[in-house]
Amino acid sequence: MTNPITADGPVRVVVWGENRHEQLEPEVAEIYPEGMHNAIRQGIEENLGQGAVVSTVTLDDPEHGLTEEVLENTDVLVWWGHAAHGEVSDEVVDRVHRHVLAGMGLLVLHSGHWSKIFGKLMGTTCTLRWRSERDREIVWTVDPTHPIAQGVPHPFIIPEQEMYGEFFDIPAPDELIFLSTFSGGEVFRSGCTFRRGFGKIFFFSPGDQDYPVYFHKDVRRVIANGVVWAKTYRPERTSPVLLRYETEDFYNGQGYQGALKAQ
Amino acid sequence: MTNPITADGPVRVVVWGENRHEQLEPEVAEIYPEGMHNAIRQGIEENLGQGAVVSTVTLDDPEHGLTEEVLENTDVLVWWGHAAHGEVSDEVVDRVHRHVLAGMGLLVLHSGHWSKIFGKLMGTTCTLRWRSERDREIVWTVDPTHPIAQGVPHPFIIPEQEMYGEFFDIPAPDELIFLSTFSGGEVFRSGCTFRRGFGKIFFFSPGDQDYPVYFHKDVRRVIANGVVWAKTYRPERTSPVLLRYETEDFYNGQGYQGALKAQ
Amino acid sequence: MTNPITADGPVRVVVWGENRHEQLEPEVAEIYPEGMHNAIRQGIEENLGQGAVVSTVTLDDPEHGLTEEVLENTDVLVWWGHAAHGEVSDEVVDRVHRHVLAGMGLLVLHSGHWSKIFGKLMGTTCTLRWRSERDREIVWTVDPTHPIAQGVPHPFIIPEQEMYGEFFDIPAPDELIFLSTFSGGEVFRSGCTFRRGFGKIFFFSPGDQDYPVYFHKDVRRVIANGVVWAKTYRPERTSPVLLRYETEDFYNGQGYQGALKAQ
Amino acid sequence: MTNPITADGPVRVVVWGENRHEQLEPEVAEIYPEGMHNAIRQGIEENLGQGAVVSTVTLDDPEHGLTEEVLENTDVLVWWGHAAHGEVSDEVVDRVHRHVLAGMGLLVLHSGHWSKIFGKLMGTTCTLRWRSERDREIVWTVDPTHPIAQGVPHPFIIPEQEMYGEFFDIPAPDELIFLSTFSGGEVFRSGCTFRRGFGKIFFFSPGDQDYPVYFHKDVRRVIANGVVWAKTYRPERTSPVLLRYETEDFYNGQGYQGALKAQ
Repeated sequence: MTNPITADGPVRVVVWGENRHEQLEPEVAEIYPEGMHNAIRQGIEENLGQGAVVSTVTLDDPEHGLTEEVLENTDVLVWWGHAAHGEVSDEVVDRVHRHVLAGMGLLVLHSGHWSKIFGKLMGTTCTLRWRSERDREIVWTVDPTHPIAQGVPHPFIIPEQEMYGEFFDIPAPDELIFLSTFSGGEVFRSGCTFRRGFGKIFFFSPGDQDYPVYFHKDVRRVIANGVVWAKTYRPERTSPVLLRYETEDFYNGQGYQGALKAQ
Repeated sequence: MTNPITADGPVRVVVWGENRHEQLEPEVAEIYPEGMHNAIRQGIEENLGQGAVVSTVTLDDPEHGLTEEVLENTDVLVWWGHAAHGEVSDEVVDRVHRHVLAGMGLLVLHSGHWSKIFGKLMGTTCTLRWRSERDREIVWTVDPTHPIAQGVPHPFIIPEQEMYGEFFDIPAPDELIFLSTFSGGEVFRSGCTFRRGFGKIFFFSPGDQDYPVYFHKDVRRVIANGVVWAKTYRPERTSPVLLRYETEDFYNGQGYQGALKAQ
Repeated sequence: MTNPITADGPVRVVVWGENRHEQLEPEVAEIYPEGMHNAIRQGIEENLGQGAVVSTVTLDDPEHGLTEEVLENTDVLVWWGHAAHGEVSDEVVDRVHRHVLAGMGLLVLHSGHWSKIFGKLMGTTCTLRWRSERDREIVWTVDPTHPIAQGVPHPFIIPEQEMYGEFFDIPAPDELIFLSTFSGGEVFRSGCTFRRGFGKIFFFSPGDQDYPVYFHKDVRRVIANGVVWAKTYRPERTSPVLLRYETEDFYNGQGYQGALKAQ
Repeated sequence: MTNPITADGPVRVVVWGENRHEQLEPEVAEIYPEGMHNAIRQGIEENLGQGAVVSTVTLDDPEHGLTEEVLENTDVLVWWGHAAHGEVSDEVVDRVHRHVLAGMGLLVLHSGHWSKIFGKLMGTTCTLRWRSERDREIVWTVDPTHPIAQGVPHPFIIPEQEMYGEFFDIPAPDELIFLSTFSGGEVFRSGCTFRRGFGKIFFFSPGDQDYPVYFHKDVRRVIANGVVWAKTYRPERTSPVLLRYETEDFYNGQGYQGALKAQ
């Protein structure tokens, strides 16, 4: 197929996992014996097959596994963190932020809503309501033509989940794809897209360390769809820049070379 | 590539051309000797190659070429009309409208802004400012991650064009991809997406019978990108419906079978 | 206060009521002895006091009470219909449509989702899921700075209501203010704004003939807030128009005076 | 008028001015002999009269004039900065950020696009194209029902201005109100709203130290409209918070009191 948009190689995905609950809590380790990041990875591979090359890194890797070199070779980064948001170094957060604005896709999952990187990209508190009491979560599609919603039932049901409820303090999403309800009566904007700089961001709330959500068929499909959607196709990994342009020259901007004209 | 989103066959495209100017005005026939619809078709083929199968129909075909059977086998319909909007039958407009809401993609080009089908989908007057005096049009990308903007320069320049200016009476677009300026100082939201029912719509304003715009390399690329974007992936061509659902049965809605409970 | 935006006189509101259930069904007449339209009117007056002048008209009035003269003197029209959408004449629907595009505000309540006027403005089927089985509806605010959400608790609860659920086939709203959940687990985009032409539209789903929803304090406040929000402040009641503008003359457009240049 | 939304006292506005160009550059001091902040202040007073109480503070005031006490008593902060963005202390930026998320309105003018506070709220680079060569700027309204657009001509013209052009790296605005074109052919999204937390933000690009833009009648009207629009009406100045809620208790969230369940 010669469509230049989709004709290139597999999506290069890195799943970032905090990997602390799995080490410290036997009940989490029982649900996710290979770590949550590996369950997420497998779900992507299961859906995309040779369309994706997926690796994993974790908080305890040097530079949290997110070196400049790793990011340069990542089309889409998937982020799961919870208990140790504060341990993520500001330097790495700044690096990820720079790469997103320069074109790297980012999927933020569940408790990643309160990660440093998500807050830095959103500009808001990203706070919400919560309760981990085995609520049933029902996920409804409200944007049925969106590629991220393809192939999932309307609705799909997660038998037991942590409740996340509104008000979720995020900017109004560019696209609102999924809404979730919980057996306690709460509602949540559970699937949201945001475009920032040259990068695409998908937030998807299902998923928690205490429930086997990342083995759920439809959750896996949504994450895989999100990975495909979040890949961008600019030829270079560079951020937008501030440049001066001459009249009638639309293509050759230049950096500012003057100064405050003090006397 | 096993990504289920993009793994299926070529996009089936129908270009609908009014084909009146080309018959009545020699200067238009000179620019578009095979008709505007064929210039549009060639631009799509040139960009998508085997990724698309493109045919053309025109106003003077029986049922304007848009029979139920044709539409059922169309993934994306491209619409160019101008002088003869009023001759398009309401029955065909209703049929196209139904297919869009049921999942057929629609690209509306240039003067198609005042077609019956666009007005019916938008709900507004779709009026604008205009002047055909060989303005230079400059097309700027304001949504650089959008797949429809991939592969086109920022900006791209159309040396001579009809001016279309604001206020363009459309609903706020779901996505605003391109803005055009004209040498007279006007501005226009020239690339806009809208989702309606299960269908995706892309309006793109460059293009006119008096200028060879549909031979412009970047205009062709945008239209081809739009075609790929507008294809949807639901298994059936059916519209949303009004159904009653029993409590705890999320999947088996039923039509209303009661009546106004008159005494 | 000299702010020219809010300094003028009271909002002139017309509540349009279908007024059929109240005539035909004793149980509805018991809930709404003065008709639903009067309950809605009283809720607006209660909240806006001298800030609004509210009248009511019904389906059985001549021209459904919506003559050209009435509409010319209406800032905001509130619409409740259900059983008799089909009896509303197309001529009146076209007249209301024209006035909305020319600047009249419109509030569409509950089953008005399937009225001719709402469908004509939205361009979609406006279908949804439903069930009238005394679900509890909880209304959550997701746009807390919006003036329509001012003064209502987060959430507010309607003890018994008809269920309206997604997928609700509307264009993505310009602003999504409220989300409702139902005891059966469904969700609905229950408070949505749309701008069309020079008019502002607010859809609010709570309200039904079988439940006393229009006596609910918070529902009344939201409707009153919606009325204030929907009023526009253009000096004239005219629609957008299609006009030709000379180069360098940005203010004096003219109608087209040429013709298809046939030979 | 008893409408509770608009019935309270005047809007309390603080105009923050960098006030450096006026001190260092005689040509700027000639245009703005009382400082740019005072020209902005006068424009608001001229339009809102007793509907607003406006004061000014500048970079060189202690804590840049933006103490906790000042912000607590500010409904809407107007920000103009340019040459000395880097001198604004991070502590004050964090304080302003917190107040915006808690409900203070914010107007960011012109070169404020590159201020720390705007970048922190947007999450993007906020870069753009520019050229200060006396372009004519034409400001077009594309959201004619928006209260910020009331009372200004379509279009309005600023005879000489700095050019600001796309791509402007901001999130897609919640509402796009104005588009500007420049005589060099560029375009800019010049009037944009954003809602963040419990606060409303309006970015408006006209205005520069080298041109008398803040004396322009229509520019002044837009800024005054923006001030009225940005005021919010929550009873308290508090940010969204992260709280746990018990099932069936929608109103009494509590802070987390547990810990990572390490063994």
